[in-house]
Amino acid sequence: MKMRPRIELALEKALESLDNGDCPPRLREAIRYAVFPGGARVRPELTLAIAAACGEPSGELADRAAAAIELLHCASLVHDDLPCFDDAAVRRGRPSVHARFGEPLAVLAGDALIVHALDAVCELVPAYPRRGPIVMRVVAAGVGAAGGIIAGQAWESEPSVDLRRYQRAKTGALFEAAILAGAASAGAPLDRWRNMGRLLGEAYQIADDIADVFASGAALGKPVGQDRAHQRPSAVRELDIETATRRLNDVLEAARDAVPRCAGREALRQRFAAITKAHLSRIAPPRATSAARPPVKRLS
Amino acid sequence: MKMRPRIELALEKALESLDNGDCPPRLREAIRYAVFPGGARVRPELTLAIAAACGEPSGELADRAAAAIELLHCASLVHDDLPCFDDAAVRRGRPSVHARFGEPLAVLAGDALIVHALDAVCELVPAYPRRGPIVMRVVAAGVGAAGGIIAGQAWESEPSVDLRRYQRAKTGALFEAAILAGAASAGAPLDRWRNMGRLLGEAYQIADDIADVFASGAALGKPVGQDRAHQRPSAVRELDIETATRRLNDVLEAARDAVPRCAGREALRQRFAAITKAHLSRIAPPRATSAARPPVKRLS
Repeated sequence: MKMRPRIELALEKALESLDNGDCPPRLREAIRYAVFPGGARVRPELTLAIAAACGEPSGELADRAAAAIELLHCASLVHDDLPCFDDAAVRRGRPSVHARFGEPLAVLAGDALIVHALDAVCELVPAYPRRGPIVMRVVAAGVGAAGGIIAGQAWESEPSVDLRRYQRAKTGALFEAAILAGAASAGAPLDRWRNMGRLLGEAYQIADDIADVFASGAALGKPVGQDRAHQRPSAVRELDIETATRRLNDVLEAARDAVPRCAGREALRQRFAAITKAHLSRIAPPRATSAARPPVKRLS
Repeated sequence: MKMRPRIELALEKALESLDNGDCPPRLREAIRYAVFPGGARVRPELTLAIAAACGEPSGELADRAAAAIELLHCASLVHDDLPCFDDAAVRRGRPSVHARFGEPLAVLAGDALIVHALDAVCELVPAYPRRGPIVMRVVAAGVGAAGGIIAGQAWESEPSVDLRRYQRAKTGALFEAAILAGAASAGAPLDRWRNMGRLLGEAYQIADDIADVFASGAALGKPVGQDRAHQRPSAVRELDIETATRRLNDVLEAARDAVPRCAGREALRQRFAAITKAHLSRIAPPRATSAARPPVKRLS
């Protein structure tokens, strides 16, 4: 099955319990609105790509891990858009969840997505007693308060913050988790993948920062200039665009080099090219002149 | 070890990962503020009491299950107190989490408590490959969108709601989960405990409704009259106090009768008396005259 339909199917299966008749209809609608039709699905694609590279091209545990990662990403978007954070009325080119369903259902939809993401993996643990708990724990670590994306968001409430640490938690942690979950669902040892996950996470955070400054709102499907508006630490604001772009290229290169030896190493590197190209192309069209923006190297 | 210190220790262990240096200090403080010193800890007490009655008087899995249930209860309090829900400035006799730490950290603390509650159980799954996943799933069901406390809260955003269904999800689901988690952590079959869990959950919801109308704010440590203020369905408002109290007594009686045969059946019934006495005594001192309030029978 092609990647995107496989991810959508995995998401549907992970949310199947909402159809048991005990989920309030508007809550169910808000949860599904937060998940479908979705954005680039880059994190679950990475999970499945890593699992395939580790010799598990079509495992149900990898599907479930990918779905969990994406559901947690959606949860973070719903809560980050709340009035007390970004107060974003638009997400993926349409009203954000709280703008459409009200704040109470947005809080609850985010909460529910966290619960059902982890529960969806747990459902498969009896069938995968060794791999299953490892997948669950790397997924939980990617969102938790001890270095996960919740920590990343919370650093914004601290009086001072180290930029790298903040970035690593805010965006990097879930990319790292996506990669580790892929490896774990294939039964591969995690240590060899950790460094690559960390580097790729860092790359996406820098890319996001650049996008926030240089992309158009129409291309992103959400408001730009949020980092400055909310006085958030930003690689671009602190470093200037040239240095940030250079760092992005360096980090992408390092991530590619850090792909460990595995059955599908070369295929995985090529896959990265396609996945990251789609994500990084959001940086165009730039609002600055193209002369002012150094070219971003694609992973190849 | 005595019950209360055992629960506090289990909560500390479940939150140990926050000490790894990667949790932003104010977030860690907000999470711990939401959990300690805590309220009556009635749910984890029930979990441990059921586990003991099922022949597991001191298991680490039961401890972890109890901690998870309490952490999820704390998460629900933090989010329920948010301005978009109850907008409660006071909880357990002091400022609520959002009043003390601000709304962003309150949202994130609640999110983190959900993640770490489930992750804390997951940590023990490798040691308990059969019981562990069952514990996790009943705990997740108690909070989830398909009939758990998230569903309960979300019913308030629906145009119409069935009172029993709303109550069962809003409060009953987590009591039911507390009881099932106790049985599951002891390896006992769940079916025999489900009915009792459901009845006890219903009893606590009716008791809470009565307390909301008749207790003093000082006794509860939070504002009273919230059901009316937020136009929430309430057993007391719809039924009048006499009928509600009669139903409470009937349900408590039925819950006692529904305790299935197990090694510690009689001890468990006695334990219920102590646990529910502490909880139900919150109903006094009444703001109405005592003559207007029928006596509430204690479980014995």
